[in-house]
Amino acid sequence: MIKSWFECAPRLVDVAMGRTPADMVIHNVRWVNVHSGEIIPRTDIAIAAGRFAFVGPNADHAVGPATRLIDGEGRYALPGLCDAHMHVESGMVTVTEFARAVIPHGTTSMFIDPHEIANVLGMPGVKLMHDEAAGLPINVFVQMPSCVPSAPGLENAGASLGPADVREAMAWPNIVGLGEMMNFPGVVAGNGDMLAEIGATQAAGKTVGGHYASKDLGLPFHAYVAAGPSDDHEGTSLADCLARVRQGMRAMLRLGSAWYDVAAQIKAVTELGLDSRNFVLCTDDSHSGTLVNDGHMNRVVRHAIAQGLKPITAIQMATLNTAQHFNMERELGSITPGRRADLVLTSDLTELPVETVIARGRVMSSNGKLIADITPYDYPASARNTVRLGRKLSAADFDIVAPEGANQVTARVIGVLENQAPTRALQASLGVSKGIVQMDRAGDVCQIALVERHRGTGKVVNAFVSGFGYDKPCAIASTVAHDSHHMTVVGTDKGDMALAANRLGEVGGGVVLFSEGHELALVRLPIAGLMSDQRAEIVAEKANGLIAAMLACGCDLNNAYMQHSLLALVVIPELRISDIGLIDVLKFQATEVLVTTTT
Amino acid sequence: MIKSWFECAPRLVDVAMGRTPADMVIHNVRWVNVHSGEIIPRTDIAIAAGRFAFVGPNADHAVGPATRLIDGEGRYALPGLCDAHMHVESGMVTVTEFARAVIPHGTTSMFIDPHEIANVLGMPGVKLMHDEAAGLPINVFVQMPSCVPSAPGLENAGASLGPADVREAMAWPNIVGLGEMMNFPGVVAGNGDMLAEIGATQAAGKTVGGHYASKDLGLPFHAYVAAGPSDDHEGTSLADCLARVRQGMRAMLRLGSAWYDVAAQIKAVTELGLDSRNFVLCTDDSHSGTLVNDGHMNRVVRHAIAQGLKPITAIQMATLNTAQHFNMERELGSITPGRRADLVLTSDLTELPVETVIARGRVMSSNGKLIADITPYDYPASARNTVRLGRKLSAADFDIVAPEGANQVTARVIGVLENQAPTRALQASLGVSKGIVQMDRAGDVCQIALVERHRGTGKVVNAFVSGFGYDKPCAIASTVAHDSHHMTVVGTDKGDMALAANRLGEVGGGVVLFSEGHELALVRLPIAGLMSDQRAEIVAEKANGLIAAMLACGCDLNNAYMQHSLLALVVIPELRISDIGLIDVLKFQATEVLVTTTT
Repeated sequence: MIKSWFECAPRLVDVAMGRTPADMVIHNVRWVNVHSGEIIPRTDIAIAAGRFAFVGPNADHAVGPATRLIDGEGRYALPGLCDAHMHVESGMVTVTEFARAVIPHGTTSMFIDPHEIANVLGMPGVKLMHDEAAGLPINVFVQMPSCVPSAPGLENAGASLGPADVREAMAWPNIVGLGEMMNFPGVVAGNGDMLAEIGATQAAGKTVGGHYASKDLGLPFHAYVAAGPSDDHEGTSLADCLARVRQGMRAMLRLGSAWYDVAAQIKAVTELGLDSRNFVLCTDDSHSGTLVNDGHMNRVVRHAIAQGLKPITAIQMATLNTAQHFNMERELGSITPGRRADLVLTSDLTELPVETVIARGRVMSSNGKLIADITPYDYPASARNTVRLGRKLSAADFDIVAPEGANQVTARVIGVLENQAPTRALQASLGVSKGIVQMDRAGDVCQIALVERHRGTGKVVNAFVSGFGYDKPCAIASTVAHDSHHMTVVGTDKGDMALAANRLGEVGGGVVLFSEGHELALVRLPIAGLMSDQRAEIVAEKANGLIAAMLACGCDLNNAYMQHSLLALVVIPELRISDIGLIDVLKFQATEVLVTTTT
Repeated sequence: MIKSWFECAPRLVDVAMGRTPADMVIHNVRWVNVHSGEIIPRTDIAIAAGRFAFVGPNADHAVGPATRLIDGEGRYALPGLCDAHMHVESGMVTVTEFARAVIPHGTTSMFIDPHEIANVLGMPGVKLMHDEAAGLPINVFVQMPSCVPSAPGLENAGASLGPADVREAMAWPNIVGLGEMMNFPGVVAGNGDMLAEIGATQAAGKTVGGHYASKDLGLPFHAYVAAGPSDDHEGTSLADCLARVRQGMRAMLRLGSAWYDVAAQIKAVTELGLDSRNFVLCTDDSHSGTLVNDGHMNRVVRHAIAQGLKPITAIQMATLNTAQHFNMERELGSITPGRRADLVLTSDLTELPVETVIARGRVMSSNGKLIADITPYDYPASARNTVRLGRKLSAADFDIVAPEGANQVTARVIGVLENQAPTRALQASLGVSKGIVQMDRAGDVCQIALVERHRGTGKVVNAFVSGFGYDKPCAIASTVAHDSHHMTVVGTDKGDMALAANRLGEVGGGVVLFSEGHELALVRLPIAGLMSDQRAEIVAEKANGLIAAMLACGCDLNNAYMQHSLLALVVIPELRISDIGLIDVLKFQATEVLVTTTT
């Protein structure tokens, strides 16, 4: 943990006055001043105790025999980049490995919402990621998950969190606020628990994250704002972000692996001239492949600039604006005295090549390569053995029994849409053989199962799904199954479905693909069944192997395993599966798999 | 006290949804949206529980039988104005009377530093104003005074405050931070007490007010910033404000009764295009006459607009920017849901006529007239009997004895400069009669005395002063004597000096003028010898009477009694008087009144 400003102040004052040498002096940078909005050439920076001590035209007075000197060579020095809202679990790596992956991209601060691990492990899971975050050499602050389970009554997650948990978490040192309040229908209805969670966060003086995933900007939107959430990253259109900013919320503009919400909304600044201080950039969800190949917040800032935003304004949206939003302006987000000495050196303010990254006064990466040691965090056994099936599954567990005497049925089918989170509620006519409803591989109707995996009840919920295009006998199982993270199994062959499910029980979770009895790909995610403890590069490679295997089985959807992971997301329409049954997410209630039968 | 947002949230949500009626609905305003920077026409506002519940195009759904309706008639609705740094005592009235005076000018939030009463009464004085502030129907937050006495070693104030007091005060509900850290030489030298006060404030998550009253923008300035103050209102030039903003401080631009620091500094925005979010407007010191005749923050905003600033930008500097600086953005400073329902209706966004003022959902004033009842605050006897002379003074107490046998002396003389706070260190040749040094009325050299009044020691320090122009036998005495607030007496006649001093002892403080044995004017300031409990109008009228009496005695300086009140301000060069003696404020040490003598 870095010492507080006031603990360091005597030293900082002495360094600024030249009474004692700095730990590091960077000569000759172009100071990207996010406070004034200027680029100030020929600036020196002195750093001591992990904080900026002096920023001005000449820091020679702060140089002593042991001071590390860095020649800025006239490069731009910008504050380390901040991700204002994100889920580490989406990268399928630990917080530590996520940090290792993003530091070379210039990220030095992350505001993470460990919503996924909370659904599996509850408060102990949040605490684990909180503690891991606190020990890192960059700044990782935690938002307390607000909605676990996401859809009470429609699913049973591995844990359930409420106002008392929120109150408890607000006292943890690294908790920065409440994670996205997804239960907007509850908030708007005046749900006491939801308002109490918001209240506990406000009472602690912390930031309430919003998540108003609706197009309705009428009264429910206004009521949601009146309840207290202070930001929202669910806006996708210009109208969405105008409404949010006008009502005093920060518009968080999102560019994740699968989210592209910056371009439409940033027009509020580039075309309508709105005050840019209310705009904050974030990623929300980044896959390991994105981190390895494309970048992180540097990718978002670069994209925002490409939309016509002035570079300094885009950089403010990933530094000062973020810090101000979380009431951390005096702690990070700018290169000014007292703040944590987090900065990026770059030779181009539009393309943003990240040449050097310094965090808390320590050189972390150089030309895209991490050069600092970061100690791995050792997750305990309790976080590693979370796939509890209760028994060995067999092919027969996936049988969908037809009504007595039926030889044809009409069944509800979850219709997957490429590159979209919503599904469609389809229906299909399916045959019956020996009393069992049959899949229709030619018609792209295969089976989906939700296997309870938190309490070892052995429960299996079966239904049908369409849209993956599997044309071989195969099955893919995953313990990443938003948001309650049971195990979902999709397959054209029940034997493969049983093999895949049992395999994940054996390895403690992940994603696996079996075809004709053979394991074609496996991404091991032993931590809570959600995260690997390997490097992001390795996870990205394994994930590529999985995509290749899916393709070999006939599925060519973009990011197909992500589609897979959303099939149990019972807060987004139209049809989903949960441990309770097939869920109609237009009516927010369980429904039957079979509609009609013909004898 | 207003209930917190989260206590009101269930009601606010219900009002926004139309499930329960609002307390007040204002139809048809032009919404001055300080978040987005827009003016949004045809907006309705619904208010409940003293907070904004809904702001949008139509609030009819929030109207019930008991809802008070106000027709906005298309006027501009702007957030209630905030004064980011000010001393109530400068108005010579209580916090309550100050509020009564400024509410009709549109002020609904004040951040006050009770530095003066702290010098007289110490922590109990700060607590009194804190408690008075907390009970008012507008928002008055208190900054804990940081430097009492202002010049340790050069004066003894009525009390002395230190880090332990600051730590204690940070737990009081209405304390918003540390008041201006005036001891910048101490900070820069690494003084442990000063850094500890800053540290206690930062540790409480509150705002450290700055006061770097120096032209030196070199290393001492940088060291001051590194110590932690987060704003500064002592800048006067463009260079001053550029330096502050670049280093991550808020530039507080001041327009007080005698401060004119906006015009030069605002060019940073109007001409250089700096990010305006770092600029905050304040008054620092307003006399009651200014409040009665000219206005308060409306005067400052109007002035800023007259300098070429866009109205919305100027308004942000007195609303949202201030709120953000004190981490109160979610509580006040904008017309958006959840915030305290403080607003001003005006028909012109440049001249800013203040037509209606609403605070916490209550109509406070209409067309410049206060229409709400405000309960006076009853100061206890301990705050009222603070002028302790210890004995009755006589003319002989003001004798300055010449050295044995001297018939001519050269004396140091405090030279008063019209409209300037600094004095000059003059010298004058003065005659001696019967062993006593004589004044030189023709040469405008009269006497000044500092009468100890906090501990009743009976001590009188005598010296000479020039520049007031008194041409009659007279004396003016004042218990407003920055910053330690002993009693200063300036006179051409020692009998009148004794009468004036004794009179203030009798009435518990104020400012009084005697001439030839008669009392020509008296401003009673019974609370700590600093404040009246009368209306600002009455105090202003009494002060005018005093100015007229001074003029009748030959003194035509602008704001002459203010000059009088600064003669003991031992932190500003060049020559001052304190209870310790005559103070050379270039050398920061006591000096002798008499330089040489001729026999």
